[in-house]
Amino acid sequence: MPELVTIGAGLAIIGAGGAGIGIGIATSKAVEAIARQPEAESKIMKLLIIGAALAETTAIYGLVIALLILFVK
Amino acid sequence: MPELVTIGAGLAIIGAGGAGIGIGIATSKAVEAIARQPEAESKIMKLLIIGAALAETTAIYGLVIALLILFVK
Amino acid sequence: MPELVTIGAGLAIIGAGGAGIGIGIATSKAVEAIARQPEAESKIMKLLIIGAALAETTAIYGLVIALLILFVK
Amino acid sequence: MPELVTIGAGLAIIGAGGAGIGIGIATSKAVEAIARQPEAESKIMKLLIIGAALAETTAIYGLVIALLILFVK
Amino acid sequence: MPELVTIGAGLAIIGAGGAGIGIGIATSKAVEAIARQPEAESKIMKLLIIGAALAETTAIYGLVIALLILFVK
Repeated sequence: MPELVTIGAGLAIIGAGGAGIGIGIATSKAVEAIARQPEAESKIMKLLIIGAALAETTAIYGLVIALLILFVK
Repeated sequence: MPELVTIGAGLAIIGAGGAGIGIGIATSKAVEAIARQPEAESKIMKLLIIGAALAETTAIYGLVIALLILFVK
Repeated sequence: MPELVTIGAGLAIIGAGGAGIGIGIATSKAVEAIARQPEAESKIMKLLIIGAALAETTAIYGLVIALLILFVK
Repeated sequence: MPELVTIGAGLAIIGAGGAGIGIGIATSKAVEAIARQPEAESKIMKLLIIGAALAETTAIYGLVIALLILFVK
Repeated sequence: MPELVTIGAGLAIIGAGGAGIGIGIATSKAVEAIARQPEAESKIMKLLIIGAALAETTAIYGLVIALLILFVK
């Protein structure tokens, strides 16, 4: 049944939700911090973007595996 | 059914979401810390990247197993 | 169906995400601590790496079982 | 289908991730404590290792069951 | 299919991860407490071991059921 690969691809992208939670938690503290120290905006922004990029990688792994399952396998 | 391996690969990468949550939590405190002690930026950045790399390893285990399932097995 | 072993291997590595969450939580407090007591950097780094190594073992159990399923069983 | 045992083994080790979360939480507070009372380092380290060993036992139960399923059953 | 019992055993031990999280949370506060009142070390240690033993019982239930499924059933 070639349709089974769609189940594999669907499962592969579930974990991306974890990165969504993580980036949300990071943003929540960044918003809090910027309200307290508005002058530190550039440093906070830089750190948030680095951290979010690191967390995002884990979602991209899921995306890569899902695409490999759908179009390469 | 060779399509079953795609389900295995899909399951293998779900756990990567855990690293996404972890890196997000680490970033949230790093952002808070940098707003309070902007002069400690380099130490905070260094520690965040080390911690994120350690957490990332667990996502990479999932990626390795998924790729092994798809292309070696 | 020999493809079923890949489902077992995929399941085995899901738990590694727990170590990813744990290491992230540990890093979050290490970052906070280093911003408050920058002079304690070496002690904080040492303890974080010991704790992360202990948490990492649980992910490695999953990796070992996944590899045993794929290549020994 | 003898391959079904690998699914059992894969499920058995998922719970090990819980110990990974727990050890990470324990490490997070140990790091915080060592930054506040650096002179208590040996006591903190001792307690962290005892607590981590206790949490680790739950991951080892999963490992034992997974190995029993793979190689004894 | 006698192999189906291994899936039951694998499911039975997943919950042990909950005890792993709990023991980690207990250890985290014990470490914090010992840093604040180092002279209370023996009392804190005693309480942590009792609490961890109580939490551990829930993991042992999973272990007992998994072993019963594998070797008695």
